[in-house]
Amino acid sequence: MLKDSYLVGLIGSGIGPSLSPALHEREAARQGLRCLYRLLDLDTIGVPPEAVGELLRAARLLGFDGLNITHPCKRLVVEHLDALDPRAEALGAVNTVVFDGGRAVGHNTDVTGFATAFARGLPDAPLERVVQLGAGGAGAAVAHATLTLGAGRVTVVDALPERADGLAASLNRSFGPGRAAAAAPDRLPELLAAADGGGGLVHATPTGMAAHPGLPLPAGLLHPGLWVAEVVYRPLETELLRAARAAGCATLDGGGMAAFQAAGAFRLFTGREPDSARMLADLTELTGGAVGAPQ
Amino acid sequence: MLKDSYLVGLIGSGIGPSLSPALHEREAARQGLRCLYRLLDLDTIGVPPEAVGELLRAARLLGFDGLNITHPCKRLVVEHLDALDPRAEALGAVNTVVFDGGRAVGHNTDVTGFATAFARGLPDAPLERVVQLGAGGAGAAVAHATLTLGAGRVTVVDALPERADGLAASLNRSFGPGRAAAAAPDRLPELLAAADGGGGLVHATPTGMAAHPGLPLPAGLLHPGLWVAEVVYRPLETELLRAARAAGCATLDGGGMAAFQAAGAFRLFTGREPDSARMLADLTELTGGAVGAPQ
Repeated sequence: MLKDSYLVGLIGSGIGPSLSPALHEREAARQGLRCLYRLLDLDTIGVPPEAVGELLRAARLLGFDGLNITHPCKRLVVEHLDALDPRAEALGAVNTVVFDGGRAVGHNTDVTGFATAFARGLPDAPLERVVQLGAGGAGAAVAHATLTLGAGRVTVVDALPERADGLAASLNRSFGPGRAAAAAPDRLPELLAAADGGGGLVHATPTGMAAHPGLPLPAGLLHPGLWVAEVVYRPLETELLRAARAAGCATLDGGGMAAFQAAGAFRLFTGREPDSARMLADLTELTGGAVGAPQ
Repeated sequence: MLKDSYLVGLIGSGIGPSLSPALHEREAARQGLRCLYRLLDLDTIGVPPEAVGELLRAARLLGFDGLNITHPCKRLVVEHLDALDPRAEALGAVNTVVFDGGRAVGHNTDVTGFATAFARGLPDAPLERVVQLGAGGAGAAVAHATLTLGAGRVTVVDALPERADGLAASLNRSFGPGRAAAAAPDRLPELLAAADGGGGLVHATPTGMAAHPGLPLPAGLLHPGLWVAEVVYRPLETELLRAARAAGCATLDGGGMAAFQAAGAFRLFTGREPDSARMLADLTELTGGAVGAPQ
């Protein structure tokens, strides 16, 4: 039976500015559901990331229907769950926990969120050679997404070589040998030249966020034979996207991933189908961007 | 600043049929507030009453705005609070906890709920000699209420003499020597005869509830010179109230106390003024009774 109310929250650090409460509560209101989405900020509560298990147990005890999980708890939470969705299991990271009949089940809607955003925003983009900048948590999720969408080969570039190597090895275990490789940033010119006409660039580092302005790579490396997909969504319009459009690239901003991961979590929490286009419009409004995000 | 949403719950045992979620959520909806009221049933969670402190800490951690507390935790919760409202302190029992800027403050809206119901439903009832049947948790709250309303003397009758003695002693400490006395049930005929024209009977035992049908005293003891106030509210129309009306007594059903304790908790949780008459009408509807409870 579908409920008419749901109680959820977000566990993470420094999450005060999160848009998730507004995204979930607005969509719930449109569907006639009473939804409370509470921020459980580790910094405010004063507990370390390792307390995620304790917070999870408390939330289940107190009648929460589920939780979103973000940095720095996406991996830490895994050992406290009763079951994992296959995508979350392959990734080893969870951003959505559903309490279902006494069980806590982990999912990852970052992966499905990026895949949905990409398929909608860049539907005809070739995926033979994908160059991905950033091998952190967001990077792992979007690499899973592009490989799930059928990318021939993803080359992961990170300033920390061991992080790039680790992600590439994990991707090869999940998707088959040769689907992923690691590279140092100095190989970007060669990699982006080789992707000409058959691939593009996924950007998954924090550069370009309000707190980390700037370009994550020299603008001169961008050329019209590439698409560019951005993970940063605050602001929606990053310096990278501006440079990419100026260079003639098809682009995808980070709003779709942010909105569709929330839509995916909404679907899991409520059992109802969200109006994900409306959630994307909300996100665009909330980030102060122009409506009509994919460009 | 007033919030536009609030998250509260009820801790107690066997609370599945509680009307509190509906009373709070309906009033919140009328006021344009999103409210979730969750039942935290010790039996379902599988923890003993002594776990109330742990549940309280978990609720505060997870962003609850407050909690109602019921049997068997109203006294157990006291030691886990940072402060008590004077009424709750005098009574030694709490039915409402408000989380306020890091502090957990205990209140008792059973006392104010009964006082409000009595003042509205039996406004001209003489209070020189009140006979009260039942010295349990509800009995303690309503005796505090009638003495607060100015009752001259409350005689507490209970089948357990030590419970009646304990409550009378506690009332005398709070309200002054001689305001309360204890008596055994065999003194009811004499006590009710002496209240003729100057008092009435407060019934505060479970007899008359759906699970405990029957009359709590012989119907022949009721006479037109008494008013009769009932604490039981499921059903609203108890055998005692029927017998009392047949004997010519003015009567007050238990719905007012139930609705006004919820209204008082709503006021504390939200900082907004509830429409308590509307909450009483809701309670009457939810218990299947006729509208217009005070008779």
